[in-house]
Amino acid sequence: MNTPVTVVGLGLMGKALAAELARNDYPTTAWNRSVTEVPEGVTRLASVAESSPTMVVCLSTYEVMYEVLATADLRGHTVINLTSGTPGEARKAAAWAAGQGAAYLDGAIMAVPQMIGLPQAQLFYGGPADLFESCAPMLRVFGGATVHLAEDPGVPLLYDLALLAILYAAGQGLAHAQALVATAGVSATQFQPYANAWLTHVIGPMAGPENARAVDEGEHATDVSNINTNALAIGHVVRASRDAALPVDWLLAQQARLEQAVADGYGADSPTRLLDYLTEETR
Amino acid sequence: MNTPVTVVGLGLMGKALAAELARNDYPTTAWNRSVTEVPEGVTRLASVAESSPTMVVCLSTYEVMYEVLATADLRGHTVINLTSGTPGEARKAAAWAAGQGAAYLDGAIMAVPQMIGLPQAQLFYGGPADLFESCAPMLRVFGGATVHLAEDPGVPLLYDLALLAILYAAGQGLAHAQALVATAGVSATQFQPYANAWLTHVIGPMAGPENARAVDEGEHATDVSNINTNALAIGHVVRASRDAALPVDWLLAQQARLEQAVADGYGADSPTRLLDYLTEETR
Repeated sequence: MNTPVTVVGLGLMGKALAAELARNDYPTTAWNRSVTEVPEGVTRLASVAESSPTMVVCLSTYEVMYEVLATADLRGHTVINLTSGTPGEARKAAAWAAGQGAAYLDGAIMAVPQMIGLPQAQLFYGGPADLFESCAPMLRVFGGATVHLAEDPGVPLLYDLALLAILYAAGQGLAHAQALVATAGVSATQFQPYANAWLTHVIGPMAGPENARAVDEGEHATDVSNINTNALAIGHVVRASRDAALPVDWLLAQQARLEQAVADGYGADSPTRLLDYLTEETR
Repeated sequence: MNTPVTVVGLGLMGKALAAELARNDYPTTAWNRSVTEVPEGVTRLASVAESSPTMVVCLSTYEVMYEVLATADLRGHTVINLTSGTPGEARKAAAWAAGQGAAYLDGAIMAVPQMIGLPQAQLFYGGPADLFESCAPMLRVFGGATVHLAEDPGVPLLYDLALLAILYAAGQGLAHAQALVATAGVSATQFQPYANAWLTHVIGPMAGPENARAVDEGEHATDVSNINTNALAIGHVVRASRDAALPVDWLLAQQARLEQAVADGYGADSPTRLLDYLTEETR
């Protein structure tokens, strides 16, 4: 007999989580403020106060979570919070849950609802390792790539937002590229195979283990593409973008770092050195 | 007997080009302002005026190219210019070459010197299609992925800079991500497998043919990840980055576009719709 679970929040993601629990024979109940429909095999609760001791929370914001959970007595409960937010919000919620007498894991879902339950669905968890271990069989129902990253409950959302930063950066770059080629009447579809090959052969390796090692060890020697070359090239991108009346503000900080690195005598080094400049700016 | 070729410019890339021509039995001469060493099988010229009728030019900038080629009589010559610059510079150079009585192709090398000659080395060309065809056997020596993109000599550098825009965007995002996770003591190496999986499974498809078709056809319906979700998520990235004292300026234009699209009633659409907002800003 599997542990009963209550899913709090039935947005698109909450629904997918509840449906997957029910499909895997977890006695599943669910609560939601507005939605009255629940997935097949899931029982709707009239109030969060009726929740099972194990709760999977997936609401729109941490504020909504506080509001909703305030209506329940959480003593002895386990709260697995998959609500999106910031690492700071996750850490605060963990402290708050401890004050309520509840065990707490914070998690981040790196998948769309359609992917829930699939082997490649990636979910990150943070909080006590032993608590994660005891919940792991149930949590693995949501996705095959389920990992406990750290005791720090802020780390899953930190990874989540770091990955999203790459996504929004790349998305901005892709839209900019599509707008640039459009100035010569080139469609996104014509340009696409080149963008795709570039992602695979050039951008992929940039996110590879060798570059990560260079960053961690501060070893920036290169015989491939150095800061001098890239400082010149990003200047061409900025000029051509201005020629096309495209906004370049998002490129200027990166250009300034490349130029500063040249001025500092690091022109022959790999652009992996730029992270030092970014970190310096935070001080 | 292969056509004799002169390579003008012996930087790292010019050297790789000359070496590859010589290795493929093209009678190869080369000229460079400062370098006196030439690759094996390449004959050094004392002056550009001695150049063969077919010239491959690979200098640091278009300005340097004008300066260097001014010393030669280009009537009846074919100039294949692989110098980095902007589409505007390429178009101007094509007009200038016509004025000198030379045939002209402009090209962009999407590869590092080490890749010259390999099947996966990508080179773009623009200019008269028949001129490209007659030079193609020689040009294919430089890389297996050699294509003629357009009659417009500005198009190769346009593709080049568009791809570089994606590279600098992704590089900025990756450095930002590494700096974010570092705030919890997570190394680039620990984070790397997740960044890599994310690039493969999430960012790759974003540059796929379906998204390109959505952009071209203005079909932005989605049941995967919509503008509402992303407007919320980019807000988390911005807040968490500010919490970590990381610069967020590069994200704000993208955030503003997402929020404007929500305000305009497009929240349920795919972020492919954002290109319209970017294009709008150029008007």
